[in-house]
Amino acid sequence: MQKMVEVSMPEDRLHTILTPVNKDLNKIETITNGVGSGVQVPLSSMLEYSLGGGKRLRSALVVLTGSLYKVQKRKLHILAAAVEVLHSATLIHDDLVDNSLLRRGHKTLNALWPPGATVLAGDYLLARSVSLIAELENPDILGVFAEALYTMSAAEITYHYSRQNKKTRDVYFRSIDAKTASLFSAAAHMVGLLAGSTKTDIASLSMFGREFGIAYQIVDDVLDYVGTESQLGKPAGSDMVDGVITLPAICYLERHPDDKSIDRIISGKMDRRELSTFLTMVRESGAIQDALEEARAHTRKCKGVLAKLPAGRPRQSLMDLLDYIVERTH
Amino acid sequence: MQKMVEVSMPEDRLHTILTPVNKDLNKIETITNGVGSGVQVPLSSMLEYSLGGGKRLRSALVVLTGSLYKVQKRKLHILAAAVEVLHSATLIHDDLVDNSLLRRGHKTLNALWPPGATVLAGDYLLARSVSLIAELENPDILGVFAEALYTMSAAEITYHYSRQNKKTRDVYFRSIDAKTASLFSAAAHMVGLLAGSTKTDIASLSMFGREFGIAYQIVDDVLDYVGTESQLGKPAGSDMVDGVITLPAICYLERHPDDKSIDRIISGKMDRRELSTFLTMVRESGAIQDALEEARAHTRKCKGVLAKLPAGRPRQSLMDLLDYIVERTH
Repeated sequence: MQKMVEVSMPEDRLHTILTPVNKDLNKIETITNGVGSGVQVPLSSMLEYSLGGGKRLRSALVVLTGSLYKVQKRKLHILAAAVEVLHSATLIHDDLVDNSLLRRGHKTLNALWPPGATVLAGDYLLARSVSLIAELENPDILGVFAEALYTMSAAEITYHYSRQNKKTRDVYFRSIDAKTASLFSAAAHMVGLLAGSTKTDIASLSMFGREFGIAYQIVDDVLDYVGTESQLGKPAGSDMVDGVITLPAICYLERHPDDKSIDRIISGKMDRRELSTFLTMVRESGAIQDALEEARAHTRKCKGVLAKLPAGRPRQSLMDLLDYIVERTH
Repeated sequence: MQKMVEVSMPEDRLHTILTPVNKDLNKIETITNGVGSGVQVPLSSMLEYSLGGGKRLRSALVVLTGSLYKVQKRKLHILAAAVEVLHSATLIHDDLVDNSLLRRGHKTLNALWPPGATVLAGDYLLARSVSLIAELENPDILGVFAEALYTMSAAEITYHYSRQNKKTRDVYFRSIDAKTASLFSAAAHMVGLLAGSTKTDIASLSMFGREFGIAYQIVDDVLDYVGTESQLGKPAGSDMVDGVITLPAICYLERHPDDKSIDRIISGKMDRRELSTFLTMVRESGAIQDALEEARAHTRKCKGVLAKLPAGRPRQSLMDLLDYIVERTH
């Protein structure tokens, strides 16, 4: 009998990790899609277009952390849907702010609609995410949710519109912490509140979410340097086109402190050809490995925190999810 | 002894009406301004710029309706601040959507900052308004608040980006109901919830707020036709420049059904001179009186509803406020 060679791709592994919670994810998706029901055109088509797709990672994180405790499933699903809807709202506004035209292989809302319609569609989703939180009837959860949102908006303004030195690790980490990690952290924090966990557990959940989000975002930023267009759903180097300096470029600069390329990126003066040359230089410099090592340091820290939380199958799935996020290719 | 001739201007009357609640209004303003503390530049300057000014009518409405009942003052102030902050957030986004460059005699945020910064500043205030609501620890209030917000966003999209016939009263009233009256209605509704009022009283409060808001918006739209630039803080006819058709134009069309001017406004083809001619035609047609009569019909209905609510000094102030809103000149 011939033995089959098993090649496990990261995306197959994600599928395997999420299989036990697939039913939950589908129920969450039903709630999420429901926020677009009963509205008129053109908002209905804008929402249909925005709410689909995505890896449902935030939902998975809510369901899996919730499964560490005894939490009413329906409430867990509503919380996850609120997080996903808020995430969609912020993506819509961020794409407008960054003038990004492609996401996940599709045109962004702002590529298809006037800026005004895009702003209002984001506001609508933002309000619907608040409505979902209202259903949980827990003011503490609402407080955490609102704080995550205003932290995100304030940090985006500081990042894009103040004279910070974008070439430093410090500014980069503060930016991804606010932009991405704060919502992951808030999501896990809210699960703890919903579960009525101890203060210690809530602090751990919150830190777990934060480290998870940081590692996830670093890898996202690495993929923008090493991914192919079909993997990314947009051309490699898109962040640089938007003038956003991420960890691979910062690591490159640490290895080549005299290179002035990054200043040209920030000033928007770099053309397509130079950009492509710079991508190659970063890829060949060891900066990608530096950045991935940083991501792994965060997943290790994250696993350490997770080890203090209740053991069992869901905890193992979260451990596996942490491995997946640094191995993924898109 | 010579007798002084008393000439009471509407704005003096507003001052008199609000005198009993001035302390409350100042406390609310302190909370409102507080949402801008602790943030970095440039957001801090954007907020300082956006949070000042305004008639504080929404605050007055919350305090006065709250004074019909026994409500904890601190909670009433937080609720009023949440409503004012949400209102500021929606103004910021609306000015961007309408591309309005002047409001209350000052440049709008979008006239001074890139669209992205304007979007994010609105989001920040939106989130802070939700945080204020969270302090009230009342999920029902949150539900009403969130619904007001998503109703507003959805209606703005429908108004601006769908093929509705903007020349009808029906579309106009649906638009101002969602754009303005829904927040006044939600504000009074939330006061009822905070006060633990009866269902009947809450329904009355909600209807009171709605009729108040409709009358207020009609007069706002009339003032855009009859006000001077110094009264309005922007040139007369600004709505038309934005392609927004309001009640005076609709009343004019009812008197002159064959006039095609409004189609030219909607298509954006009308130049400054034609616009000025059209303004004069509307002013001289009796349409202004028609529109004001409609506003008065709503304040009468509003007074009828108010008469069912607890009697006393605050109720009288609300009656006076209703007279003021149709007499005001800016």
